Amino acid sequence: MLIKERLFTPGPVPLPPQVIKALGQQIIHHRTPEFTQIFNDVRQKLQKLLKTERDVIMFASSGTGAMEASVLNFFKKKDKVLVINAGKFGQRWKELGTTFELNVIDYQIEWGKTYSKEKIEEIVKENPDIKGIFVQQSETSTTTYHDVKFLGEISKKLDDCLLVVDGITSVGVYEVYPEEIGIDVLVTGSQKALMLPPGLAVLYFSEKAEKRLSTSDIPKYYFDVAKEAKKQENGQTAYTPAINLIIALNESLNLILDEGLPQLAKRHEIMAEATREAVKEIGLKLLSESPANSATGVYAPEGINADDLRKQLLKIGFRVAGGQDHLKGKIFRIAHMGYFDFNDVIQVIAGLELALAKVGYPVELGKGVKKAQEIILKNI
Amino acid sequence: MLIKERLFTPGPVPLPPQVIKALGQQIIHHRTPEFTQIFNDVRQKLQKLLKTERDVIMFASSGTGAMEASVLNFFKKKDKVLVINAGKFGQRWKELGTTFELNVIDYQIEWGKTYSKEKIEEIVKENPDIKGIFVQQSETSTTTYHDVKFLGEISKKLDDCLLVVDGITSVGVYEVYPEEIGIDVLVTGSQKALMLPPGLAVLYFSEKAEKRLSTSDIPKYYFDVAKEAKKQENGQTAYTPAINLIIALNESLNLILDEGLPQLAKRHEIMAEATREAVKEIGLKLLSESPANSATGVYAPEGINADDLRKQLLKIGFRVAGGQDHLKGKIFRIAHMGYFDFNDVIQVIAGLELALAKVGYPVELGKGVKKAQEIILKNI
Repeated sequence: MLIKERLFTPGPVPLPPQVIKALGQQIIHHRTPEFTQIFNDVRQKLQKLLKTERDVIMFASSGTGAMEASVLNFFKKKDKVLVINAGKFGQRWKELGTTFELNVIDYQIEWGKTYSKEKIEEIVKENPDIKGIFVQQSETSTTTYHDVKFLGEISKKLDDCLLVVDGITSVGVYEVYPEEIGIDVLVTGSQKALMLPPGLAVLYFSEKAEKRLSTSDIPKYYFDVAKEAKKQENGQTAYTPAINLIIALNESLNLILDEGLPQLAKRHEIMAEATREAVKEIGLKLLSESPANSATGVYAPEGINADDLRKQLLKIGFRVAGGQDHLKGKIFRIAHMGYFDFNDVIQVIAGLELALAKVGYPVELGKGVKKAQEIILKNI
Repeated sequence: MLIKERLFTPGPVPLPPQVIKALGQQIIHHRTPEFTQIFNDVRQKLQKLLKTERDVIMFASSGTGAMEASVLNFFKKKDKVLVINAGKFGQRWKELGTTFELNVIDYQIEWGKTYSKEKIEEIVKENPDIKGIFVQQSETSTTTYHDVKFLGEISKKLDDCLLVVDGITSVGVYEVYPEEIGIDVLVTGSQKALMLPPGLAVLYFSEKAEKRLSTSDIPKYYFDVAKEAKKQENGQTAYTPAINLIIALNESLNLILDEGLPQLAKRHEIMAEATREAVKEIGLKLLSESPANSATGVYAPEGINADDLRKQLLKIGFRVAGGQDHLKGKIFRIAHMGYFDFNDVIQVIAGLELALAKVGYPVELGKGVKKAQEIILKNI
């Protein structure tokens, strides 16, 4: 029997047909007016996406490359920085910080939880010389949302501190306007809500962050922000760019901006709420106490291995993600960011019910679906 | 009138239809047996390409990223290294070396020339403690071939020296077998003779180079070879890979291996020879005294700006590259690497004749073409 495989993983996410079409074309050269035109269009659209008039730069790398660039370009060795370490990607900030010899205050948080405001206040009170706060707006490994607005306020109050945000699974999901929020450095990657294949990273930096470029003493070459910024403001890149991803990004940004950012954020909110309420209705427990709108982490029922459940889901056509590190086998994660609509959410919930039935969990078919439908109906 | 634009630049080069088709597909997830299968196929094919049984690793970056990785992973700060600096990319080795605090002996060579064996022998005699020799096998900016075999012999004679080769425009053009040649670290990029869009880099390292991994003291994260090698031998990557480029690489490696490496090298040799002899027949002068088979650099005729000639070539359908840095306006470069055959060479030579006629150079139409045809006829 034909079963189409559907991707519900939190990156990569499905590509829109417009993007596939843009990718499946003959290459063009990057040192041409034609490419520069597209590149500049993309840069302008990225500015609209982030509601900024500042230049936003791109790297040919995965999102981790832009995370590394955030450390390399805006800090000095021994700078004291605070890392909100609440999952696999928080851990990555910590590793990057220590690799490049920053003095990292590692605020470890149980996976599935967000930070405590009191604890943050306590840390900054004891460490007024903090030069940076590193956080994920959406920690993908635990599907947890961290409030960046509060951190923006905290950061501003400090003498000379930058708020550095991994927006890899928040940009294109929420309205992420760094200047309104108080984010100084914001990075994202192509294969999440930007709806592209992996291999392109995006980096925004504030005027305040820009001042750090000239004093940073960490050696850098490929991820040199000052060099790239100078090149890119003239419609070029320091090294060969990810040409076909940039051309495809032009298409996906059209989709995003045509929908409109408030509407896009609302759609993600509805899809996330419908997913959460449906899985709870089915009787399952959410992983996160502060769930993100990009993906929903769910504990497998007692006695059922989450990876067995995922295998069953795959058999009936749905690829969802598992847990990482110590959550492996315990949870699964359903994405709803990027090229998804509410019908997709209903479909995967129905699929989850079927899979649960197949692995012997006493599920009432349609119960979760109905809950999701109710939430959606209120919003359409 | 319809004029189709044809790409004759030394990167990016045209994509084969098989590659375009592979790119224009829905994305698949990278943590799947399906992707691991493709990834492992690609790894095996890369081993065939380089005639090695050692693992070859990939990065989501442009070629410069892999060049940076060569410096970061196999050297210690203050290590004395020799850079063969004979063009823009030789200069890049130097910049990378100094950025990451190596002690660089900068052997500067006039653009268009290759190194002197005597000079190399002199340098290594005076500096027996050299830890690395950095070179381009094909220096794209000057379309110059540097003999790496001799450098391999020199390197082996030294106490503890690695030969690091930028093979970005030589792999897929020549038979580049690092173990036969004595190359310890070899890098290449996707948008050259591998016939893909930019954004994927490849790195080979020898057993001797591997021993350096544990002693290297330069901070690294995204370009950490040891970490990637460990992941990739298990069919995965440390960070999200350039999924669609890897899938497309599987296709382009099929093309390369089906043609066979000796035949592929022969084809490039014929195309390069035909191009060189044809432009000389037209009365133009070659840029390089040691021309590479990847691309041919040519001086514009006396009194004609090379960029004006290029504009004319573009009008009649051929995009060729200009000169870089101080060669700008003086030379143009015609690529013949990757998805080109001898008919393409004939076509661009005919186009060059037409363009020269249009800009007022006294060219005998068909003269260069005939020369190219003669060379080709001897070989088919």
